Amino acid sequence: MVKVKIIGATGYGGIGLIELLKQHPEAEITALVAREDVGKRISDIYPHLEGFCDLPILDAADPQAQAPADIVVFSTPDRVGMYSAPDVLAGGAKVLDFSGDFRFTTQEAYADYATRHGKDPIHASPELLGQNAYGLAELHRAAIGAAPVVGNPGCFACSCILGLAPAAKERLFNPYSVICDCKTGVSGAGKKLAATFHYPARYENMNAYKLAGHQHVCEVERELSLQYGSEIKLTFTAHVLPLCRGIMSTLYAQMDAAHTEAELVELYKEFYKDSPFVRVYGSKAAIGTNCVQRTNFCNLVVSVDERVNRLRVVSYIDNLMKGQAGSAVQNINLMSGLPETMGLLRSGLYP
Amino acid sequence: MVKVKIIGATGYGGIGLIELLKQHPEAEITALVAREDVGKRISDIYPHLEGFCDLPILDAADPQAQAPADIVVFSTPDRVGMYSAPDVLAGGAKVLDFSGDFRFTTQEAYADYATRHGKDPIHASPELLGQNAYGLAELHRAAIGAAPVVGNPGCFACSCILGLAPAAKERLFNPYSVICDCKTGVSGAGKKLAATFHYPARYENMNAYKLAGHQHVCEVERELSLQYGSEIKLTFTAHVLPLCRGIMSTLYAQMDAAHTEAELVELYKEFYKDSPFVRVYGSKAAIGTNCVQRTNFCNLVVSVDERVNRLRVVSYIDNLMKGQAGSAVQNINLMSGLPETMGLLRSGLYP
Amino acid sequence: MVKVKIIGATGYGGIGLIELLKQHPEAEITALVAREDVGKRISDIYPHLEGFCDLPILDAADPQAQAPADIVVFSTPDRVGMYSAPDVLAGGAKVLDFSGDFRFTTQEAYADYATRHGKDPIHASPELLGQNAYGLAELHRAAIGAAPVVGNPGCFACSCILGLAPAAKERLFNPYSVICDCKTGVSGAGKKLAATFHYPARYENMNAYKLAGHQHVCEVERELSLQYGSEIKLTFTAHVLPLCRGIMSTLYAQMDAAHTEAELVELYKEFYKDSPFVRVYGSKAAIGTNCVQRTNFCNLVVSVDERVNRLRVVSYIDNLMKGQAGSAVQNINLMSGLPETMGLLRSGLYP
Amino acid sequence: MVKVKIIGATGYGGIGLIELLKQHPEAEITALVAREDVGKRISDIYPHLEGFCDLPILDAADPQAQAPADIVVFSTPDRVGMYSAPDVLAGGAKVLDFSGDFRFTTQEAYADYATRHGKDPIHASPELLGQNAYGLAELHRAAIGAAPVVGNPGCFACSCILGLAPAAKERLFNPYSVICDCKTGVSGAGKKLAATFHYPARYENMNAYKLAGHQHVCEVERELSLQYGSEIKLTFTAHVLPLCRGIMSTLYAQMDAAHTEAELVELYKEFYKDSPFVRVYGSKAAIGTNCVQRTNFCNLVVSVDERVNRLRVVSYIDNLMKGQAGSAVQNINLMSGLPETMGLLRSGLYP
Repeated sequence: MVKVKIIGATGYGGIGLIELLKQHPEAEITALVAREDVGKRISDIYPHLEGFCDLPILDAADPQAQAPADIVVFSTPDRVGMYSAPDVLAGGAKVLDFSGDFRFTTQEAYADYATRHGKDPIHASPELLGQNAYGLAELHRAAIGAAPVVGNPGCFACSCILGLAPAAKERLFNPYSVICDCKTGVSGAGKKLAATFHYPARYENMNAYKLAGHQHVCEVERELSLQYGSEIKLTFTAHVLPLCRGIMSTLYAQMDAAHTEAELVELYKEFYKDSPFVRVYGSKAAIGTNCVQRTNFCNLVVSVDERVNRLRVVSYIDNLMKGQAGSAVQNINLMSGLPETMGLLRSGLYP
Repeated sequence: MVKVKIIGATGYGGIGLIELLKQHPEAEITALVAREDVGKRISDIYPHLEGFCDLPILDAADPQAQAPADIVVFSTPDRVGMYSAPDVLAGGAKVLDFSGDFRFTTQEAYADYATRHGKDPIHASPELLGQNAYGLAELHRAAIGAAPVVGNPGCFACSCILGLAPAAKERLFNPYSVICDCKTGVSGAGKKLAATFHYPARYENMNAYKLAGHQHVCEVERELSLQYGSEIKLTFTAHVLPLCRGIMSTLYAQMDAAHTEAELVELYKEFYKDSPFVRVYGSKAAIGTNCVQRTNFCNLVVSVDERVNRLRVVSYIDNLMKGQAGSAVQNINLMSGLPETMGLLRSGLYP
Repeated sequence: MVKVKIIGATGYGGIGLIELLKQHPEAEITALVAREDVGKRISDIYPHLEGFCDLPILDAADPQAQAPADIVVFSTPDRVGMYSAPDVLAGGAKVLDFSGDFRFTTQEAYADYATRHGKDPIHASPELLGQNAYGLAELHRAAIGAAPVVGNPGCFACSCILGLAPAAKERLFNPYSVICDCKTGVSGAGKKLAATFHYPARYENMNAYKLAGHQHVCEVERELSLQYGSEIKLTFTAHVLPLCRGIMSTLYAQMDAAHTEAELVELYKEFYKDSPFVRVYGSKAAIGTNCVQRTNFCNLVVSVDERVNRLRVVSYIDNLMKGQAGSAVQNINLMSGLPETMGLLRSGLYP
Repeated sequence: MVKVKIIGATGYGGIGLIELLKQHPEAEITALVAREDVGKRISDIYPHLEGFCDLPILDAADPQAQAPADIVVFSTPDRVGMYSAPDVLAGGAKVLDFSGDFRFTTQEAYADYATRHGKDPIHASPELLGQNAYGLAELHRAAIGAAPVVGNPGCFACSCILGLAPAAKERLFNPYSVICDCKTGVSGAGKKLAATFHYPARYENMNAYKLAGHQHVCEVERELSLQYGSEIKLTFTAHVLPLCRGIMSTLYAQMDAAHTEAELVELYKEFYKDSPFVRVYGSKAAIGTNCVQRTNFCNLVVSVDERVNRLRVVSYIDNLMKGQAGSAVQNINLMSGLPETMGLLRSGLYP
């Protein structure tokens, strides 16, 4: 049994991981740590867990919170996990971090990310950068298995990277022509209260936000550039819509030569032939976010606007599953030498 | 492995059963039968099943549809299963029916039900009435295990009966004082298109319906009367609300003597102490339908309006789970000698 | 032109009043006062008002906030308006208060209300109690026209009182048999952030709340008792559902004698024949909250459960209109000698 | 008083027009015609109109339906209005058509549109093409005032054209670089039932659709090309989201030279300085569809992705107002010599 400790257990990321690990045949949760609600049982806060997980919330300094673990998950904001990771590693466990702290493998890349988003550009554990892996299994399966520290991807980033990586690898498009038009449900913003996510303010209301720049752009550009072999710069727009779960990212890129939808579907299927959580469709398929809801799948609908020779991919994920806790379990499996799909192969429940 | 054949596989009841059985360690689906979409794969119609269940939809007359089964499930409207049940039994399988056909154990009770709802009062297989069991495991566990034919309960009925059975058994209330004020999400009406369930017509819209009498009343009255020991007549109001899944039934009954909430909570907990899918709470608990969503649980919040000595129970279920496919799997387990909870012990995913 | 000053202008009550008064041919807004956002224009906070109302938010102490007014509206919580009302009256204006401060006409009734809800039972301006009117025009038209101080009704209360007043006046039911099962959209809780109204927590989630007692019960019991001629005690359950606007209250009462639906519909129509905002229907009408949404109407669907001789009325209002700002404009009209319907006769926009 | 007759009165377009005209000080409805529900009162079908519009639905052949009118509105599908328009004109009335029939001013342009969408390319009244005007007041104010026949714009088209016209007129971008990523609520699809708009199937579900080509593309390209002075070809993606009303179109175009957001905001404000229903904002404004809901406004948020020199405009409208009935009233005003804003200057009601 893989022992997992969760820091930041009471946010949506933490709770999602608890739900999945309680259904995982080879994993067990050894401790739940958070800053708020210390002393309460997790099922007091989230009654749907009653009888499934009744562990107490512990303060980080609590002796019980020092229980041994194989993997320590930081479901915490930026600049939390980076301070604790060295101690975790010294204790013999691996680190899986949900923030931007370990999504970049050089100090320069981290500094660029941090600077753009108004954060301190100095990484607290620069010696770990380079040892870490970007936790998108479809692109970095082997590295994730080997790395002591893994940075779980951002939800938007995950949908965009999966949607464009095959075409990027083949350099099918102009590197400055990419547009990511992303739509998310509200759960992507987490459990923190905000006027814009107050129920009446959000009901039947949708809007673009962070037009000046979203924090996930850096990782999309970095990963696609890696596939492409040279720099990609893209335009990214985040929109929030009145639903709870789901991301639909519509991705555009100007192709240099004509390619049919059939060719591209074939290319994408080949690229993902060993990736059990990616499904590829042509433009006739009737796919919506409800086909991936509460699952770890990413559904890609590939099409071409032949009048202007433009690639268009619509990428569907559940932002809290493939976009967060599902990818995390996929990473935990890889980091533990377990089959990648363990504990994750379930269809959603419709409708 | 219990072999299950599903008639009416493409409705919400059928699809829900497929989803659960594909995650059940001791059950397998041998055939899917429906009248529409014959020849398509079920995952062509419901793409979320891709890779989980790709069985073809068969016509009832198709030889493949005659594959042997231990249990044949009729997820069909009233007056379908009753015609086929004798043949199924003759073939050595048991019958689980989702309609009103086998929810009553006498021809008189069936006729009363059918007459009230404008249907033919003559049951097509009256010889089976009396051999059948009402499929609410919490009240009829042993009978379900022994019966060749089980009538799966109505969704509203399930929520109301579980909410009042403990008090009924103790005869705590006046038998003509019961009011069931029931609120359901739209999925309770199934997949059939209707103007009132067209998205724009239902968005931010709620209403009471079938004020002249809902078809689930008969089974609620019959089951509560059985517990009470004499006739109960109640007022039932169905309301439909703009959400997909969930039933919240607020149940009122005038008590003959004063009882505190604490006494009643104790009574309810005792009544359900061997029922793993019922959880009992007092009025301070923060319970909503999202605590039971996509699970087989029924959460009961018990309270007393002491100023007028009135019992009030709020009963929460997922109408498609405990209210339909979840109860069905519970029944399949009991009918097959498997542990009642097999394949059903999962928390929902929040939010 | 009636000059109106709004205290507490930035809450849902204030904003609703602004929207209606800007479309009112005989009213003008002279000042907007609030504690937060002072100095901003109201249309900076609520961009939909851009070009319609761009007045600044003033501090109560600002000289501009002393601009003369005919009516000062307190869209403020309990125990705010009661302190300022005497000064307003001394200045020659009338008071319309949205809280519980002036919904009761005796110190005893106020103290009962306040005590039940954990508030100071001593009214700050007891000399005004008795001069004030309960602002439900359908029952107190003349009093509202004459009173210097009017207490705007609670939203749930409004729906329940209108739904049962005609039957109460005829003493058709047992005074201890009344049950009000009320369902509201989330906007009823106002703009204050709360974990339970965070969008993801409320999506597809419904629950009963305040089971120990809702603050609107006192005014329902008081008003129905007035109609009935003796004390009524009732059971009240509040439920919150995942929509924005709308109240649906299902009201039950045990009748002492048999009455048909047709008789009751007739009785209700007669009772409300001079009330242009109340529409009465029988049980066959297809009425939902979307028939009253964003209007000042109350739609009543009257039916009888003849098997147990129980009256059942379903009362539909928009909680922010007839339940708040719409009733307020109705009251402002009456307090100003204007036609009751002025500025309010508009259908909603469907869907 | 302008006399208006509505053909196709019972669809969302018709009902929207009725609602607005009943609040219009200088318009009256003389007849409602439809193919279904003939003989019923419109308020029997739409109870929110009770007391506001109780006119009967007439068959087109009914003598009452021949009542004189100044303007006949065809709120009908493609290829209905084009057959009747000549008779209407011969009778002395003008025509306002909601379909694609009169959105193009040459037989060639109509044929291109019709062919792309699988319709008969031969216009039934080609002699009227050239006399007609495209009914987007902001671009064709004078023509609309003078034309006997006006084609009301498509909802998506309206949002896209308004969002890019100012930049097109200045030829700021590459004519083949335009992408329109459009998101709509479900009401855009009208009242016709469809499996994809059944409430449970649409709840928490979003998807792209008509990836092979949406029928509104032709008019966007035609109108933008007119502004641009030469051909524009663009990529258009339609998405449908789980809300009722609202369109959010995110529009991208590659600029040939660097322009700041401030410059562009200024340009847009200047372009629309005489258009009272268009509001222009920079990227810092907190604008969502709820700022325009149930109003005739179009809110434009203008920004630049300076890293790649790309223009990005987010265009917000209510698809049933500015996208349909609101624009229709604007056109009726212009066609009748009334002030353009008459009957339309109302804020929405928040939330």
